[in-house]
Amino acid sequence: MNAFGRIFTMQIFGESHGASVGLVIDGCPAGLPLNVEDFLVDTERRKGGIQKGTTPRKEDDLPIFKSGIFNGKTTGAPIAIFFENNNTKSQDYEKHRAVPRPGHADFTAHHKYRGYEDFRGGGHFSGRLTVCLVAAGVIAKKLLSHHGIQVKAAIESIAGLPDMEAGLQKAIDAKDSVGGIVGCCASGLPIGLGEHFFDSVESLISHAVFAIPAVKGIEFGAGFAAAAMLGTEHNDAIIDASGKTKTNHAGGIVGGITNGNDLYFRIAIKPTSSTPKEQFSLNWESNEMEAFSIKGRHDLCIALRVPVVLEAVTAMVLTDLMLLEQKMKRTI
Amino acid sequence: MNAFGRIFTMQIFGESHGASVGLVIDGCPAGLPLNVEDFLVDTERRKGGIQKGTTPRKEDDLPIFKSGIFNGKTTGAPIAIFFENNNTKSQDYEKHRAVPRPGHADFTAHHKYRGYEDFRGGGHFSGRLTVCLVAAGVIAKKLLSHHGIQVKAAIESIAGLPDMEAGLQKAIDAKDSVGGIVGCCASGLPIGLGEHFFDSVESLISHAVFAIPAVKGIEFGAGFAAAAMLGTEHNDAIIDASGKTKTNHAGGIVGGITNGNDLYFRIAIKPTSSTPKEQFSLNWESNEMEAFSIKGRHDLCIALRVPVVLEAVTAMVLTDLMLLEQKMKRTI
Amino acid sequence: MNAFGRIFTMQIFGESHGASVGLVIDGCPAGLPLNVEDFLVDTERRKGGIQKGTTPRKEDDLPIFKSGIFNGKTTGAPIAIFFENNNTKSQDYEKHRAVPRPGHADFTAHHKYRGYEDFRGGGHFSGRLTVCLVAAGVIAKKLLSHHGIQVKAAIESIAGLPDMEAGLQKAIDAKDSVGGIVGCCASGLPIGLGEHFFDSVESLISHAVFAIPAVKGIEFGAGFAAAAMLGTEHNDAIIDASGKTKTNHAGGIVGGITNGNDLYFRIAIKPTSSTPKEQFSLNWESNEMEAFSIKGRHDLCIALRVPVVLEAVTAMVLTDLMLLEQKMKRTI
Amino acid sequence: MNAFGRIFTMQIFGESHGASVGLVIDGCPAGLPLNVEDFLVDTERRKGGIQKGTTPRKEDDLPIFKSGIFNGKTTGAPIAIFFENNNTKSQDYEKHRAVPRPGHADFTAHHKYRGYEDFRGGGHFSGRLTVCLVAAGVIAKKLLSHHGIQVKAAIESIAGLPDMEAGLQKAIDAKDSVGGIVGCCASGLPIGLGEHFFDSVESLISHAVFAIPAVKGIEFGAGFAAAAMLGTEHNDAIIDASGKTKTNHAGGIVGGITNGNDLYFRIAIKPTSSTPKEQFSLNWESNEMEAFSIKGRHDLCIALRVPVVLEAVTAMVLTDLMLLEQKMKRTI
Repeated sequence: MNAFGRIFTMQIFGESHGASVGLVIDGCPAGLPLNVEDFLVDTERRKGGIQKGTTPRKEDDLPIFKSGIFNGKTTGAPIAIFFENNNTKSQDYEKHRAVPRPGHADFTAHHKYRGYEDFRGGGHFSGRLTVCLVAAGVIAKKLLSHHGIQVKAAIESIAGLPDMEAGLQKAIDAKDSVGGIVGCCASGLPIGLGEHFFDSVESLISHAVFAIPAVKGIEFGAGFAAAAMLGTEHNDAIIDASGKTKTNHAGGIVGGITNGNDLYFRIAIKPTSSTPKEQFSLNWESNEMEAFSIKGRHDLCIALRVPVVLEAVTAMVLTDLMLLEQKMKRTI
Repeated sequence: MNAFGRIFTMQIFGESHGASVGLVIDGCPAGLPLNVEDFLVDTERRKGGIQKGTTPRKEDDLPIFKSGIFNGKTTGAPIAIFFENNNTKSQDYEKHRAVPRPGHADFTAHHKYRGYEDFRGGGHFSGRLTVCLVAAGVIAKKLLSHHGIQVKAAIESIAGLPDMEAGLQKAIDAKDSVGGIVGCCASGLPIGLGEHFFDSVESLISHAVFAIPAVKGIEFGAGFAAAAMLGTEHNDAIIDASGKTKTNHAGGIVGGITNGNDLYFRIAIKPTSSTPKEQFSLNWESNEMEAFSIKGRHDLCIALRVPVVLEAVTAMVLTDLMLLEQKMKRTI
Repeated sequence: MNAFGRIFTMQIFGESHGASVGLVIDGCPAGLPLNVEDFLVDTERRKGGIQKGTTPRKEDDLPIFKSGIFNGKTTGAPIAIFFENNNTKSQDYEKHRAVPRPGHADFTAHHKYRGYEDFRGGGHFSGRLTVCLVAAGVIAKKLLSHHGIQVKAAIESIAGLPDMEAGLQKAIDAKDSVGGIVGCCASGLPIGLGEHFFDSVESLISHAVFAIPAVKGIEFGAGFAAAAMLGTEHNDAIIDASGKTKTNHAGGIVGGITNGNDLYFRIAIKPTSSTPKEQFSLNWESNEMEAFSIKGRHDLCIALRVPVVLEAVTAMVLTDLMLLEQKMKRTI
Repeated sequence: MNAFGRIFTMQIFGESHGASVGLVIDGCPAGLPLNVEDFLVDTERRKGGIQKGTTPRKEDDLPIFKSGIFNGKTTGAPIAIFFENNNTKSQDYEKHRAVPRPGHADFTAHHKYRGYEDFRGGGHFSGRLTVCLVAAGVIAKKLLSHHGIQVKAAIESIAGLPDMEAGLQKAIDAKDSVGGIVGCCASGLPIGLGEHFFDSVESLISHAVFAIPAVKGIEFGAGFAAAAMLGTEHNDAIIDASGKTKTNHAGGIVGGITNGNDLYFRIAIKPTSSTPKEQFSLNWESNEMEAFSIKGRHDLCIALRVPVVLEAVTAMVLTDLMLLEQKMKRTI
């Protein structure tokens, strides 16, 4: 399934080296003003080529609206958005066909789809698809902002270092790639989003977050550190009638439900799988281990591109919960 | 929603101090032998009263089959299972009604359901409901075992200490509660379970795992540590045609899809919210902070009960994926 | 799947000759007063034994609440309801095991579930399960009535005759069974329920209606007769700003969406498959055709029991749409 | 929701007078050969302009593949397909903005979406969207044909007359529009598709069928006529071990499950809502009744276009059930 959501849903499609990638959003409230400019800041944030450590591949990444928008506003009908793939170099990939790149889906996709998968640049498994998530996020964040809700994500560390520059330098020095930690905070949330058990806020957010390639972990509030705390130390005492707590070890969620404090969580991004350094893998034709190094365009640190994607999926989940909980109107 | 799954689904219900809790499983293959004895080891593992650190509350926890089983085998129709609540002492809770216990859902539930919630012992938010998850897990694990798949979870640390005894002693000494880390491993999985993006194995497992009360984090394979590794260090080189990798930093999942190696992940459990020690919270009637200590039956360390519950939700997800991927027959 | 609904969902379970049948409703708004008496009129309407033509089998059919109700009101947690099967005579069915009864699911269930199905009295395929639908309908109708919406179904004809007595007499005279037509009308609906295409009101209602055993057709408004009308004859002219139309050939739905006029549709119920008269079927052990007649308790005309069931599934769909469309509060 | 299906899913989008309409299919097995030519027969069958009685509007209706196809075969990733709208004349519609056309969604959409809807040519409610259904059907029918399953639909009557010519002449003579009855038959189905209650074959097919604009009724097998039959007359006696029945009043479905005989059902199509003849409706600006006649391109009898659309949605449901029942491989 490449679809997600209960009321505000999205369906994504496309491949890294196909004609385009895109998405269809269904269930977006009617009446939301939406134009190309709304998307540019976030698609720009997601792009490589600006920060040290991101790939020089550049796409214009202009959203092409195909449906669901009329006279500059959403209509309530499904919103289809396309992004053209203008800048693909498939020949880089063909020669590695029989050597599955470690960390990439080459091997698992090949088995699952018996060789029918589009293997160029990772095909449908490519990080290219995250532009679709970002587009959905633009719409979701705009809806949320009408209700005073802000979602902000930022790099917390790179390669284990709190200093982004130093972390990237580590990769450059090692001619390798590095990972990072990204934190996300949503403020302005009402009390009561989320449901017990399978639709807990943590369940839904983590479901959506692990759709982002390269995510290997998620923790809410104090997270893993909570496991080493005492109960009275971890518990957040409620100090006023609005539900404000003295501390926020819970990350704004209790019993799976938002408690009116900031929603806060953190995710771990593995190092970019493609590295300039030589790697080894089994050639499935010769059945022998083979050394190779990747010449294509790749990020030293894919984590740098993640914050805007993380905001996007978080905003999608929160929008869905706002609609479900009837805190957001189906018509604006 | 208190339901989960796409083909093998479960719906849970019940409250801590109601007559009973239970579940309905829909989509279970026909022909699976199933009897009360199948459940006893796991419901026993989940129970308090045995290990130092778990609550003295005891329930018989015998599953009562209400449908879907005929002549000792599953029929393909929905399987309804009940567990009676024989051992409830509601009076413990009534007096704290206006003082939401920190860490519990008292405050969020009260706002969300406007006071209509069953507040006794946490009501539907209670850890009591995990017996339903365990029951579903028994069935799922039995189905998986027919395909050579084993799911095993175990405590990895308590209160930050690898020694369970020492960790619990920390709680006893502090007259407080402690948390822990639980690891889970599934072996024998075929290559190819899970789907790109929203039905990645990580997405589905984390969705189900965060339905377990008190979970605050999850990480797959190297997890958060991956964020500080170099790419070539983190990547798992494929070394034979079966897909076996030299290391398993990916935790058995690449591109959201199982790669034939062990699936491995770890979760963080917060300290039990109810502690013997005095705590403070706002009394929503007097609107003043109030000290209270909880006299009821509570676990020093709820993490001790979690392994069997973690196995259960993991097995549910894997069963669903096996059916979806047509690796498991709908009739045995 | 034995579950239905998007926000207001139900999961049913049980077998005709098992211990009980039941349902779990998830997503019911909190705060609805609910007690056993609320169910009695409708479970009574569904019962046999009163009208000429219905079976003498009688169940007390008292709903047993297992969860989701506290202090006489719904809590927002899942509502589990049971109905005991007190009055089963399984021996009637055992001897016909190898001879699939025409019109019943004996043959299809046997193939689908490879003999593991509970075959006694139709097992999970039994009309007994409709008591679960009726129970869900009681709750849904009570919710709808708070918004001025009434759902009423009634027999329109029996055995092709508008006179119920005459229709039943036809069955008695022929020592056979007969079918009938049941109409359903929902009044007081707001404009705007339902969605284009796959969640049209007709799609959702027909989906739910064909879950009722023995239904063979459904038509909205003028229905099949519309196919022989001229466009200007069929079209309902809008005559005031409330959307009131001069005629109601559309049955209150245009473009899949309620138009504020009465929702009206009609369903066809086949004759009861079990008849007093001798029938023939293939014995799958001897592989020879065999004559048999059914001595058990059966309705001359199952259609007589259908109106209350039809109201129930219709009310479920409308409740779900009211919640989805935010015309009904999630907390009352 | 403009999405449907459980494993083989489709999401449609687009408006009559927007840039394009399209669909995304998710869950299609990998390895199915697919090219533009596969679609031409069916998109041609759906078009107007050929038969007396259909509109002169012509679109090339060439499918534009955007994803999910690689080297001429499906990859297992989502398949996005577009159809350009080359031939729109929006000015025809603007002037009628304040006068909701009877039988069209103008009034209901206007209320539901508060005026934000794209009203040109019915917008997203337009029959234009059925080209998306047809495209999904081409894929589904190709998959089914690999398993020996054929789905065929045909006009059974027009304007109440079995002779198509005579029926259309009736419309021409009256300067009005007419409806019709379309029958559909699926042969070669295995025993055992469909599930008890909410996923009965009838439930799923009717759900999908009522997504087709202008459908007002559906009946399976003997359908409404069954309501006037005697039980022994209606029951289909099983005459051999394959489940073949002497008659097929059940339309190939018993207990919601296919019985190995032909699946047969019939639907009623209302007369085209737009007619050449003068009609009346309330002008919502002047609040007065207004006469108008529609000059745009419209079909005398929309039923003529329905058979190929009916085949399509039927094939979609059957494909989904084949996959669910594991009668069809997820990789071909």
